[in-house]
Amino acid sequence: MKERLIFIAVIGGSDVSPPVETLAEEVGREIARHGAVLVCGGLSGVMEAACRGADGEGGLTVGILPGDNRLSANPYVKIPIATGIGYARNAAVAKSAQAVIAIDGSYGTLTEIAYALQGGIPVIGLDTWSISINDREDTSIIRASSPKEAVESAVELIKDRQSEGE
Amino acid sequence: MKERLIFIAVIGGSDVSPPVETLAEEVGREIARHGAVLVCGGLSGVMEAACRGADGEGGLTVGILPGDNRLSANPYVKIPIATGIGYARNAAVAKSAQAVIAIDGSYGTLTEIAYALQGGIPVIGLDTWSISINDREDTSIIRASSPKEAVESAVELIKDRQSEGE
Amino acid sequence: MKERLIFIAVIGGSDVSPPVETLAEEVGREIARHGAVLVCGGLSGVMEAACRGADGEGGLTVGILPGDNRLSANPYVKIPIATGIGYARNAAVAKSAQAVIAIDGSYGTLTEIAYALQGGIPVIGLDTWSISINDREDTSIIRASSPKEAVESAVELIKDRQSEGE
Amino acid sequence: MKERLIFIAVIGGSDVSPPVETLAEEVGREIARHGAVLVCGGLSGVMEAACRGADGEGGLTVGILPGDNRLSANPYVKIPIATGIGYARNAAVAKSAQAVIAIDGSYGTLTEIAYALQGGIPVIGLDTWSISINDREDTSIIRASSPKEAVESAVELIKDRQSEGE
Repeated sequence: MKERLIFIAVIGGSDVSPPVETLAEEVGREIARHGAVLVCGGLSGVMEAACRGADGEGGLTVGILPGDNRLSANPYVKIPIATGIGYARNAAVAKSAQAVIAIDGSYGTLTEIAYALQGGIPVIGLDTWSISINDREDTSIIRASSPKEAVESAVELIKDRQSEGE
Repeated sequence: MKERLIFIAVIGGSDVSPPVETLAEEVGREIARHGAVLVCGGLSGVMEAACRGADGEGGLTVGILPGDNRLSANPYVKIPIATGIGYARNAAVAKSAQAVIAIDGSYGTLTEIAYALQGGIPVIGLDTWSISINDREDTSIIRASSPKEAVESAVELIKDRQSEGE
Repeated sequence: MKERLIFIAVIGGSDVSPPVETLAEEVGREIARHGAVLVCGGLSGVMEAACRGADGEGGLTVGILPGDNRLSANPYVKIPIATGIGYARNAAVAKSAQAVIAIDGSYGTLTEIAYALQGGIPVIGLDTWSISINDREDTSIIRASSPKEAVESAVELIKDRQSEGE
Repeated sequence: MKERLIFIAVIGGSDVSPPVETLAEEVGREIARHGAVLVCGGLSGVMEAACRGADGEGGLTVGILPGDNRLSANPYVKIPIATGIGYARNAAVAKSAQAVIAIDGSYGTLTEIAYALQGGIPVIGLDTWSISINDREDTSIIRASSPKEAVESAVELIKDRQSEGE
């Protein structure tokens, strides 16, 4: 039987501080170490740092770009997808993964968190958004305290679901 | 000089409780009373209630649908737009308006709130999501306590921006 | 019983010759004279000329824009929809109408013709693309010899379908 | 220096005759033999046959799906992208490749041909659409007489462009 690839998205802003980039790069490294494919929005910031990390460990990286030019991907994207649909591609980033790791917080990241939760795709958060409604926190976002823990949670959740016959 | 139309989006879930529908219907009524065009996702729940309210006051209603069939719009939509792009149309709902009124809270509504904030479009909230990052609340969502107040805030914000030369 | 609005799309390039603009403007005028709503891509060239024609006759015009800025619509668009999805919006232009009038021929226009035919929406052509497969012409595009004839064909086809219970 | 991957799209209908499937499968095989990545719409018919061919030769296959469920891809897609944007994803299929091979002819295929030509991406045709305007054929679609010839043309065109500094 053919082994199925595992897909994990890393989402986060395109313009972030160096500590956030370090976090993203380590997440990318961990994803590659687990043999999973990294899915992202293909641009700079968190996306580029995560791809750089995965690429350094020989991992496969997919960049789902807002523009219609494949060459706009960051240099660590191996499979660029030129959607041409702008930020509407955020839905595709979330739904093309089996788990999403959200880092830090731009509004674009928040759209991706919400699309993932809408689609029943687990979201693991590292220093990212909290959401609540009428003072009651929505606890759907699973908190992780390190890149290693975030990726381990993602991989476990995916394997649990696969064994339940996703 | 030609008078410009004003566009206000109403966002909210497709399956909501009767009190939420009552709220949405009143928002729709107020939008029409202010002579503004109501923009929404074109389906049921908050969207249909708001359109019904606007339609009852003779207002114009635009439904930006996820599917590719114009006939899937609720019966109070006068201008149905069949995007065919699924929930990626949430970005179009937010960005086709000059202000957004968010009611209650599905995850789809959260994507629309985030898209609007990303695009610098004011969001007025009625019993809807709160968002925070690292325990610090993001106060971008303007709270209103009634449909009347929500629509008045929206209209004022739009007029202020137009006089500043949007 | 509420009378239903009729929606006719006008498709064609954004950079066309003056005779083509004249043709498009007359198509727009005829659409408005029939009380139909004009749907288009919202930009310049054929789109702007058609909107200008409709606007001059007091017609309603909808512009389904590729960008995410409502203000990028031509000045004769009354209802701008900011999709933000680039040329992927071509599918939405075709599928939001009940009949499509194609004028002249850019490649974008060809995507819209194909989307309309795919969706079973009649296409009326004025000096536009012909398509054939293995030397056999696909005769789905209905040829018209004047703007008046094109719009009359469109309106008749729509009314026939409505009476058949679209 | 890192070697860049080459991306070739195969486009064609989801419901085609056995001879067309045979053609598509051979195209897929040739793409893999040239070490290129096969990009397609991820569904059945031409798309599945081409993926099966590439997969049999150990090639990498990307399926850019209309739906929002990764699992809707045909079984030979290694990298499924769940766009959720319906047939608007046709633009993404065309623009994510460096050359497009069009087989047979549904209207969806015609949209992809037109999107590729609009984006300046070469289209090689095998028994597919011809397009003409005002009785003058548009010769942009390069005709091939066999799968081998089609893929060789695609690879040559891509390499020529890369050496010109795409």
